[in-house]
Amino acid sequence: MKRSTPKNALYAQSGGVSAVINASACGVIETARRHPDRIGKVYAGRHGIVGALTEDLIDTSRESAATIRALRHTPGGAFGSARYKLAGIDKNRAQYERLIEVFHAHDIGYFFYNGGNDSMDTAHKVSEIGSQMGYPVACIGIPKTVDNDLAMTDCCPGFGSAAKYVAVSTREAALDVASMARTSTKVFVLEVMGRHAGWIAAAAGLAGRGRGHAPHIILFPEIPFDQARFLARVKDDVEKHGHCVIVVSEGVRDASGKFLAEAGTRDSFGHAQLGGAGPVVAQMTQAAFGYKFHWAVADYLQRAGRHVASKVDVEQAYAVGRAAVRLALRGRNAVMPVIVRQSSKPYRWTVGEAPLSAVANKEKKVPRHFITADGFGITTACRNYLRPLIEGEDYPPYSDGVPAYVTIGGRPVARRLKRPFVL
Amino acid sequence: MKRSTPKNALYAQSGGVSAVINASACGVIETARRHPDRIGKVYAGRHGIVGALTEDLIDTSRESAATIRALRHTPGGAFGSARYKLAGIDKNRAQYERLIEVFHAHDIGYFFYNGGNDSMDTAHKVSEIGSQMGYPVACIGIPKTVDNDLAMTDCCPGFGSAAKYVAVSTREAALDVASMARTSTKVFVLEVMGRHAGWIAAAAGLAGRGRGHAPHIILFPEIPFDQARFLARVKDDVEKHGHCVIVVSEGVRDASGKFLAEAGTRDSFGHAQLGGAGPVVAQMTQAAFGYKFHWAVADYLQRAGRHVASKVDVEQAYAVGRAAVRLALRGRNAVMPVIVRQSSKPYRWTVGEAPLSAVANKEKKVPRHFITADGFGITTACRNYLRPLIEGEDYPPYSDGVPAYVTIGGRPVARRLKRPFVL
Repeated sequence: MKRSTPKNALYAQSGGVSAVINASACGVIETARRHPDRIGKVYAGRHGIVGALTEDLIDTSRESAATIRALRHTPGGAFGSARYKLAGIDKNRAQYERLIEVFHAHDIGYFFYNGGNDSMDTAHKVSEIGSQMGYPVACIGIPKTVDNDLAMTDCCPGFGSAAKYVAVSTREAALDVASMARTSTKVFVLEVMGRHAGWIAAAAGLAGRGRGHAPHIILFPEIPFDQARFLARVKDDVEKHGHCVIVVSEGVRDASGKFLAEAGTRDSFGHAQLGGAGPVVAQMTQAAFGYKFHWAVADYLQRAGRHVASKVDVEQAYAVGRAAVRLALRGRNAVMPVIVRQSSKPYRWTVGEAPLSAVANKEKKVPRHFITADGFGITTACRNYLRPLIEGEDYPPYSDGVPAYVTIGGRPVARRLKRPFVL
Repeated sequence: MKRSTPKNALYAQSGGVSAVINASACGVIETARRHPDRIGKVYAGRHGIVGALTEDLIDTSRESAATIRALRHTPGGAFGSARYKLAGIDKNRAQYERLIEVFHAHDIGYFFYNGGNDSMDTAHKVSEIGSQMGYPVACIGIPKTVDNDLAMTDCCPGFGSAAKYVAVSTREAALDVASMARTSTKVFVLEVMGRHAGWIAAAAGLAGRGRGHAPHIILFPEIPFDQARFLARVKDDVEKHGHCVIVVSEGVRDASGKFLAEAGTRDSFGHAQLGGAGPVVAQMTQAAFGYKFHWAVADYLQRAGRHVASKVDVEQAYAVGRAAVRLALRGRNAVMPVIVRQSSKPYRWTVGEAPLSAVANKEKKVPRHFITADGFGITTACRNYLRPLIEGEDYPPYSDGVPAYVTIGGRPVARRLKRPFVL
């Protein structure tokens, strides 16, 4: 009996990218290629869901095995990502119907959506609409976020590498300021990502061994900023240790909910002041005590820093990509592979699954018992949770002194729909 | 015939530290230990020249061979550095005399001063005063600066690793913004060090292959900033490539000589605005074209980033430390080992020497022919000069996911002088 022609797959990257999102893409494509009887071609949306909506698809089958393998060590989103949230179905059913139309036109039976909690919501809705329209698609979410804030999974691929970047950088900068403090810089501030959840800031705590070690102060978005307590603590640290290393999450707010980064400082034209929480708290310590300061804002460097990726993170990113394909082949729908922690010491993990509905639009913050009572550090419980996630190094190959990252021009799939889609 | 008791050595770190200044310390101490007949103990000034003046010395002979070896892979200044410039001899002869007094008290016959052009000036003067006071000391400078601006040497230990950090980070962040540009960030700005010389900014050019590749624009302190030309270029790049990656040196000034970082923007209290050249140029592109931007300021991260050090740089830093001791043992005085380039392709280098007087207080900027005619990029000549300096990786050992860097508490040398010294 002849089997039916295998359906194609669509893979799309969504939201802020990471050092390892392409490792998930690699996991999807390499695994799909091992099942040509079940999966035809893997198409990728150029710039994620935007490519899917506008029928701008990349044919990954035209890329060599070596190129696909190199995705594992290449940061950023190789096919392009998008910050484009589909509206609710009731508000914009046309977008979802368009997606199904594109899927139909390109014989897509599998949709792999690699993103955060918004994207899991979208994947979930696509699955529902497909069923309603009589075009069922296996919609599998693939977790990705440096923010580590997805529900149901022990951790999120992308986070471990950002965490390692921040822990390593904090350790290094701390050695620098300690050298300079006698006659120069007393306060060093590193601003890190995390608008709502302080996981990345927490990871800086792995740079030291706790109280008395750098980072001396971590400012979490989960803890309302109290300027007086903060300044008292800075003074205490400078007096005791000669210097003070501060790691501040971009999302820190005061008790009234106002972001530190917009703490009432406006320029003479009334524009909100440039710069984020980092320069603001650095300046605060100078204004109070006259300390010389330096500050750094890691921004994209922390989430693109594949050169210092966590080996565990790379492996997990690949594993959830592979698991997504396996789940689809097992007939699962509207689910997401998750990382399940079996043990912290030694670290053991496996891949499980969770329904997209349980992940969509939820946000996991740093629990209070992971933060020390004073609000400025991480507890042993937090340390035990975080440490395994930054374990191991997974260096990219280098050429001429810089990493040999791959870029994918992307062979386009011929359009089949007459109607264009306007974003 | 019994030889006289060997003289002790004093090693001191000066100015801003680097990822490899401790590799030079390692070169000094390991080499000195091989000549116990000629060199007694190596003392280190705690916080550099400040420790020398205040008789706050660390006895490095109390540190194990393993600890000294670990200096090679540890960033920052392990013995502490200082920003403390000795005044001219005519103005403050007492400081120099105090140094000689401390040297005499601790039987110091060799002074190794690891720093930039200010420090070479100091070492030179110490040598002169010692002779005048009848206490001759072999004063050897050891080059160190991430700014790469020392005269007489082909390059400066510390620069290659900062250069590699910036090239790698620019490449990574460029992949990130390219992924996001379709629906989000169009402009990414990385601010790097270099107040007077644009060597570090130039190194970002190694992230790409020139015009059309990220970084699309480099802003050098050597080229007066022209806002209209800059904005036109940003617009052109965004239109052609969908995004624009800009690397800006902290030291960029406009035609009137004013730092961009202080480009007339003051807050409502009249304070100069926080933030450096990076946020200023990012904001400028938004004001002109509405582009969404991100910016990063690498600050200490770029000069402490030992995890991504250049192998060539580590080797050269060690080599100049070793050479300093050898020069002293050959009876040389008031000289500095320099890196001599023998060939760029393949890269071959050796260690030569230069008189301190030829290095002191001079500053080597990026020559005009290293910068493209439009002022926004690096030429092939520049690329050929820079590329070998970031070659090779020299990873530190890791423990629990972070580099296993060493810290030196430092066993103090008993004070012998009654008179304290007030800085």
